[in-house]
This record gives sequence, C-alpha cells and structure tokens, in this order.
Amino acid sequence: MSILAVGSVAFDTLETPFGHAERELGGALSYFALAASFFARVRMVAVVGEDFGPQDEAVFSGRPIDLEGLQRVPGDTFTWGGRYGYDLNERTTLFTHLNVFENFHPTLPPAYRSSEFLFLGNIDPALQREVLEQVESVRLVAADTMNYWMTHTRESLLQTIQGVDALLINDSEARQLAGVPNLLQAAELIRALGPDTVVIKKGEHGALLFAGEEHFAAPAFLLGMVRDPTGAGDAFAGGFVGHLAASGRLDGAVLRQAVVFGSVLASFTVEDFGVRRLRSLTRADIDERFRAFERLTRFEPLP
Amino acid sequence: MSILAVGSVAFDTLETPFGHAERELGGALSYFALAASFFARVRMVAVVGEDFGPQDEAVFSGRPIDLEGLQRVPGDTFTWGGRYGYDLNERTTLFTHLNVFENFHPTLPPAYRSSEFLFLGNIDPALQREVLEQVESVRLVAADTMNYWMTHTRESLLQTIQGVDALLINDSEARQLAGVPNLLQAAELIRALGPDTVVIKKGEHGALLFAGEEHFAAPAFLLGMVRDPTGAGDAFAGGFVGHLAASGRLDGAVLRQAVVFGSVLASFTVEDFGVRRLRSLTRADIDERFRAFERLTRFEPLP
Repeated sequence: MSILAVGSVAFDTLETPFGHAERELGGALSYFALAASFFARVRMVAVVGEDFGPQDEAVFSGRPIDLEGLQRVPGDTFTWGGRYGYDLNERTTLFTHLNVFENFHPTLPPAYRSSEFLFLGNIDPALQREVLEQVESVRLVAADTMNYWMTHTRESLLQTIQGVDALLINDSEARQLAGVPNLLQAAELIRALGPDTVVIKKGEHGALLFAGEEHFAAPAFLLGMVRDPTGAGDAFAGGFVGHLAASGRLDGAVLRQAVVFGSVLASFTVEDFGVRRLRSLTRADIDERFRAFERLTRFEPLP
Repeated sequence: MSILAVGSVAFDTLETPFGHAERELGGALSYFALAASFFARVRMVAVVGEDFGPQDEAVFSGRPIDLEGLQRVPGDTFTWGGRYGYDLNERTTLFTHLNVFENFHPTLPPAYRSSEFLFLGNIDPALQREVLEQVESVRLVAADTMNYWMTHTRESLLQTIQGVDALLINDSEARQLAGVPNLLQAAELIRALGPDTVVIKKGEHGALLFAGEEHFAAPAFLLGMVRDPTGAGDAFAGGFVGHLAASGRLDGAVLRQAVVFGSVLASFTVEDFGVRRLRSLTRADIDERFRAFERLTRFEPLP
C-alpha cells in the first residue's frame, strides 16, 4: 500500500562536534520518504526551488518514491542551519530561510488522492488540513508537529489533531501540548483530543507507544557514535508508518513492531550527516538491526 | 545467600510538587536493604545516633535484615533535605548534616565476614575499601558512587573501583567518570578500570547493562504519578543485587532479569515518600510488576 506524505524538503547546513556539512539535502519529508521507501511506495508532496537539481532528484527517484507532487517553482529551496553541542538533544538554529516554502500550498495530483496511508509532516496545521481535505479514503492519518505550532497556532493545531489517527511527537512537545509533566498522563490527554495512537519520541532515550489499551516502551538502539541527530524523528516516523503500510495491519503487535522499525531507522540516520546513511542503507541492514534490537531488549520471563 | 551492605542511614526532609515529608527514614542503605530483603537476607553496616528509635529499627527488624552491624553512637543521625521541581530528574540539596556519619568507620561483626554478596553503597571510597579489606570470600562486589567522589577523591575512587565487579551509577556520573559523552563508550572505558559489569541508571529513561559481551537496554516502568524520586537508584541496586543473590547465578540471563527487578523496585519506591512504599510492598506485588514490565516491553520478532 502506498503512503502519501507531505512536508518540507530543504538544504541544511549542519554543525556537530563530529563534523560539518553544507547544502546537505534535508527537510523532514526527505528523511521520512527515504526511510518509509524501504517498506512501501511513497508519494511526496512538497515544494523545491530552481536550485534543486537532477542530482538532488536522483536521491529520491532511485527509490520507490513518486515525485509527481513535488512542486518546482521559481526561487530558492528552503534552507536551514543548525548546530549541536556534545549534548545532542539540544540544538541551536543558526538560520531559517523559508524561501519557496513561504507560499507553499499542497496540491495533490489526482493519482495521489486515494492513498491509504497519509503522513502529515511538521508544517503549518492549516496546510496539513488542506491535504486532509483532498484525500478520499484513508485508512490511517499519521502526523508530526512541533512546539512552534502549539505556541502560535494552537486552535488550528487542535483542529488538525482531531482528524489524526496517530500523532508522533517528542517528549517536550507532548508535555507542552497536554500541559502536564507526566508522559503517561500527557499521552492520555492527547488521545482525548482525537488520535487513538500517540507515539512519544525521546531521542536517545527511546520511544513510548499508547494505542487503545496498548502501552509499549522501547529504549533507543545503543550506538557508540552519533554524528548528526538531524532528521532522526522524521526517519522514525518513516519506519513507523512504513511498517504499518507494508503489513496492512494496525493491531497492537504491528504497532509495537512499527515503533522498533522507527527506532531502527532513526538509529541509522544519526550515524552520518543528513540523509547519507539512509542512501547507503539496504532492507537487509534494517532487518539485521531489528534483530539486534531484539537481542538488546529481551529478558527471560519469570517461571 | 546473604548480602552484606554498607551505606548511609539518614532522616530526610523531602519537598516535591506532590507533597512534603519531614524526618522521613532514608539514606541509601535503608532503600537498598529494604528492596534487597525481598530476595535475600541483608546484613546492614551503618551508623545511627541516639535519635534512631525503636520505631525506626522496627522498619528493618520486621524483615530478613540483620542489624548487628548497625553502630549506635552518641549524637544525631545523618540528616539530609532535598527539593524537587516538576522535572523530577533535577534536585536541590537544602541541607546536609553528617552528624554521627562524619566519624563513621565500618566494622564488620565476625558473622558478617563470609558474606557472598557485597554491596558498597555511595560513601567515601576509602571507607568502601575498609569493608573490602574485612571480608573473606566474596562472589560479587557491587558498588555505587557519586560525582562528589569523582571530583574530590578520584584516585581513591579508582583504587576502590579496581576491586569492584559490578558498578551501578547514573548516566551523568558515567559520563563524568569516563570523560566521554557517549554512554556505550563510557561503559567500555569504565569496564577497563576494573568492573566487568557496569549498570547505568537513567532515572525515568531506564537503565543500561554492560557485562562481558552482554548489552541490555531497559526502559523505566511507566508510571502515571511519581511522588518522590529519592532513593530510586538505591532501591534499583537492592532489586538488582537481591535477584543475583537469590538466584546464585551471574550469567547474562540473570543479570538482565536483575536489571528488570531493579527497575521494578525503583518504580515502586517513587510512588510514595521515603521508604513508605517499600514498607507496604509484598513479593507478589514485585512479581506482578515484573510481568507488567514484560508486557510493556515485548514485541514480536521478525518471521
């Protein structure tokens, strides 16, 4: 089953204690689409400028990713610059130039409208609703968002969230959205806003899943080296939604596995700058790390 | 098999967003001993003052805990006051009065010297060595420590650590001791200092185990309410060492289960102030939560 995904494509400048990269292909949708494309066909909806060249397009077109919904308009592509210190959970934004993204409105090609899985990447909640209004029969609407929309367009965000089945956000965002510090309480409050499924991403500390009666906690995969944490959450979403679309099931067992696949994709992403590691990855690598994740977390039950 | 344990017994004043408690029985050893006593007999080595009364003693003597090594000396018992905000991982020390603890030197009653499991709670590493020098045949030496000793008595700490089999410390302490931000790297560097087993406690984010080739990551148990995080790490150590002593095995499977029992005891401890929850706990409660922990973390393997 194919996944319709909307979000940002950008060129990033990245600084971490382990290196530096300029004009690195990024944006939430790039990470999501590459990660999800190991599981199912992805239909991208985004906007790029004239500086988005054939070598950039080739990153996606070499994989099961449809680019018909990728708008190309005059001007420059969205650019973002960020710097991380040794605490890779904290980052400083150096600059944000929206460029062509400033006037972006998602328009779905007719062939996209009957996608069964929809992922609304972190963009203005009003634009997320524009996508929701154009689709016809969706089995699952998954979405990401961020603290900016909670602060500046809370009512609009709440309206969008009502139409979302699975919300994927990080721990500080969950606390801000729900207004409580306890994550179990926060998840239940967020579920009361609409989404039956809430996934709370905690970076190097793993992820939590709340779905119906299902509570699942996963640590992050243990890595000896993290080069660049950019895009980890988006790649997580790609692995998560990707596995759901591939299996065609939405029960607790599949949701739990989807969290592990999300963690696996995130763990690969942070091993190198930008989407580099996602480009060299194979499905065999992913399954091998899923099994390593199993060995990392298994313990014997009581007799 | 019995566990010889040395550490502090104190009266704490505790303030959290969820309440306030004065002259609450505490100190690392109190938490450790109560938690471990659900698994094996515990022999306490500590010092208390004249203000430690029969009702305080009854907290321990009602359980399989030997108090022969509890020194009673003129003066007041160690007292500590701490305050927590909504971020329960951060605390402010309001006061520390060492009192009788200031001149404490552990002396083992003859019957204690042949204990098979030894836990060196967080005290001056020189005192930890005094205990090591008095024991005869120990199968496992487990120890805790803190940032204070890393900063002020590093050489002495390193000397103690050489004689430790299992070191249990928290994540910021592991980073400080090893001098690297990555926890996998930190654990390997610490293992090179002596301990074959390193357990890194991450509070609400779970725990990591490194032992030989064994890597194990466990999330924390999900709680809807944390009233007082004091003593969670000490109760974790009690559950961990307790399960090892009870099973009499030190292989990877038992070490992993011991981490889960540690997490379970920590999760109960934070539900109420001081050692209150540990006092009302039963072994059946512990095993029930171990099984709940299993349900929280299990996922289906790949076909």
